[in-house]
Amino acid sequence: MLLKAKKHNLQFRPHFKTHQSAEIGRWFMDYGVSKITVSSVEMAEYFSDKGWENITIAFPVNIPELDKIDILAKKIKLNLLVANYESVKFINNVLTNKVSIFIKIDTGYHRSGISADDFKQIGQTIKEIKKGKHLFCGFLTHSGNTYDAKNTREILKIHSDSKEKLVLLKKHFEKKSKNIIVSIGDTPSCTLAENFNGVNEIRPGNFVFFDLMQEKLGVCSYEQIAVSMACPVVDKQPERNEIVIYGGAVHFSKEYIFDEKGNKIFGRVVKLNSESWSNPLNNAYLKSMSQEHGIIKLEKEDFDKIKIASIIGILPVHSCLSSNNMNSYLDFEGTGISKFNYPQNLREVL
Amino acid sequence: MLLKAKKHNLQFRPHFKTHQSAEIGRWFMDYGVSKITVSSVEMAEYFSDKGWENITIAFPVNIPELDKIDILAKKIKLNLLVANYESVKFINNVLTNKVSIFIKIDTGYHRSGISADDFKQIGQTIKEIKKGKHLFCGFLTHSGNTYDAKNTREILKIHSDSKEKLVLLKKHFEKKSKNIIVSIGDTPSCTLAENFNGVNEIRPGNFVFFDLMQEKLGVCSYEQIAVSMACPVVDKQPERNEIVIYGGAVHFSKEYIFDEKGNKIFGRVVKLNSESWSNPLNNAYLKSMSQEHGIIKLEKEDFDKIKIASIIGILPVHSCLSSNNMNSYLDFEGTGISKFNYPQNLREVL
Repeated sequence: MLLKAKKHNLQFRPHFKTHQSAEIGRWFMDYGVSKITVSSVEMAEYFSDKGWENITIAFPVNIPELDKIDILAKKIKLNLLVANYESVKFINNVLTNKVSIFIKIDTGYHRSGISADDFKQIGQTIKEIKKGKHLFCGFLTHSGNTYDAKNTREILKIHSDSKEKLVLLKKHFEKKSKNIIVSIGDTPSCTLAENFNGVNEIRPGNFVFFDLMQEKLGVCSYEQIAVSMACPVVDKQPERNEIVIYGGAVHFSKEYIFDEKGNKIFGRVVKLNSESWSNPLNNAYLKSMSQEHGIIKLEKEDFDKIKIASIIGILPVHSCLSSNNMNSYLDFEGTGISKFNYPQNLREVL
Repeated sequence: MLLKAKKHNLQFRPHFKTHQSAEIGRWFMDYGVSKITVSSVEMAEYFSDKGWENITIAFPVNIPELDKIDILAKKIKLNLLVANYESVKFINNVLTNKVSIFIKIDTGYHRSGISADDFKQIGQTIKEIKKGKHLFCGFLTHSGNTYDAKNTREILKIHSDSKEKLVLLKKHFEKKSKNIIVSIGDTPSCTLAENFNGVNEIRPGNFVFFDLMQEKLGVCSYEQIAVSMACPVVDKQPERNEIVIYGGAVHFSKEYIFDEKGNKIFGRVVKLNSESWSNPLNNAYLKSMSQEHGIIKLEKEDFDKIKIASIIGILPVHSCLSSNNMNSYLDFEGTGISKFNYPQNLREVL
């Protein structure tokens, strides 16, 4: 992904919400990466403590946390995201330290942000930013609608449409604002596209691990999925060829996809060995989950080989959510890799 | 629930996996509760450290954690659950400290456990337990299939069928084993049923908070739902009457239900005030989530009243999973209530 960014002359600002790990972050540092993206103030604090000095919080600014943001803005180069001009008023009123501000643009995902064709509101928001001491730095989008695409051609079409809208905006507003950054984010577009004309920055995150959702979209192969959940077998059900694992919603969240046969699946099964893991077993999948239980359906032959107390690997549907639920990784040398643990403490946030 | 247990002469062993909080646990202690249920070894360690001395880990014993279980079994009265006789062999080989062992019986949920009509395997498992120094203490079931019931009559039918199977088992095996405990668990049955003949123990957990799923099943009313997620508003989309909150899959997991109109919903919206919260707003619901974003659909009138930076309440679909994702609660006096934080550390578990 770094080589791709270099090839297309793009600023590379990887999203760290997927791995959430200072140690994995260091692998990026070793390749010269110095700018990152995170999705919460707490995560920004964590990575700031680990030596990152240029961070974009790519989530619409959470006003109740402005005091914490102000402290952070004193220490590092901090970029915030706003999805409306009301948020800018709060920022101008509260923050004493200078930040840069991206405007969140909705190019078709319809989750949040100002619609790319609403020049009026975008103009108002830029004007509001310029009333304060902060810097308007550009337009940021996340084309999450690529995750609903039926094939890679559709992903490229979404990317191209989104890019076109952002370039139009940039042209329009660069008369009054210099150095507008156009920042795009989703892993499917960043992985598959080869045309980034007019784009200045990419912020993919999921590519660091990939997962079953990306594989289904045609964005990666199974071999490229770089994280699996190691789950102990606690029960076997011979009549149903089902295996019960210690691995449920508290580990995986509850994201699912449908496989080629129409089965709702929450993960695929791999055999773990000392140096890697196998390709997914045929016709084997995590078919349901409760809080700690996971139920795996598999073929008789594989069923017979797997014993109580064995540890099997599950490729997650959504690696970001599965990683978020765990507090460390384990590599094949047996070394633990520590990570951020969401400190969702209400007293701090509210 | 305590009064109900007393009325029916049942041992009350509430499941603490829903609240996971030492402080909330103390409210139970104040009412004389001394025996509890948890769903993982780590949770048992947490509550043992907080003064609980009689704990059932109601999850099929996780063999890689037997060393930790042995340490715990030295300190407290510990009950384990086995779903097969292979697990008993591991227990007999590894544990130096004495535990009591429940056999997990599948009365129709088909998640894990030995089928209630498989007297042969159940007999083998009891025999295997008796080979070691540990105590066979009874049959435990979780009728999770009540969560798929279409109405309360169906819940009662499942409860009654399940109870009948367990009573049969008890009668059969009490010739050779004294004091067999029949333990049932699900909140829907424990809340609605009035016939517990033959049952010795109930282990409901969710009732402590309830949630939208229980409301939909007819097990509780909205007024009885005792936990909501306080979510700041970060964006508003007037064209769609949608509000974007800081509240996504990392807070709620991804559990959903369908409402009466067939909408997939991840939560319902309440107004928070200083002493309580309102009933759910009409036609308002959490319609989708990504990692940190939640999208709320609501009526124009409510949309207009809710401002950027407001904090709104979301009643969760599944309170156990939402609570699991947070590390504290906040009461209406502004006091934080601390809780267990899943220390999913691979180096410890594997």
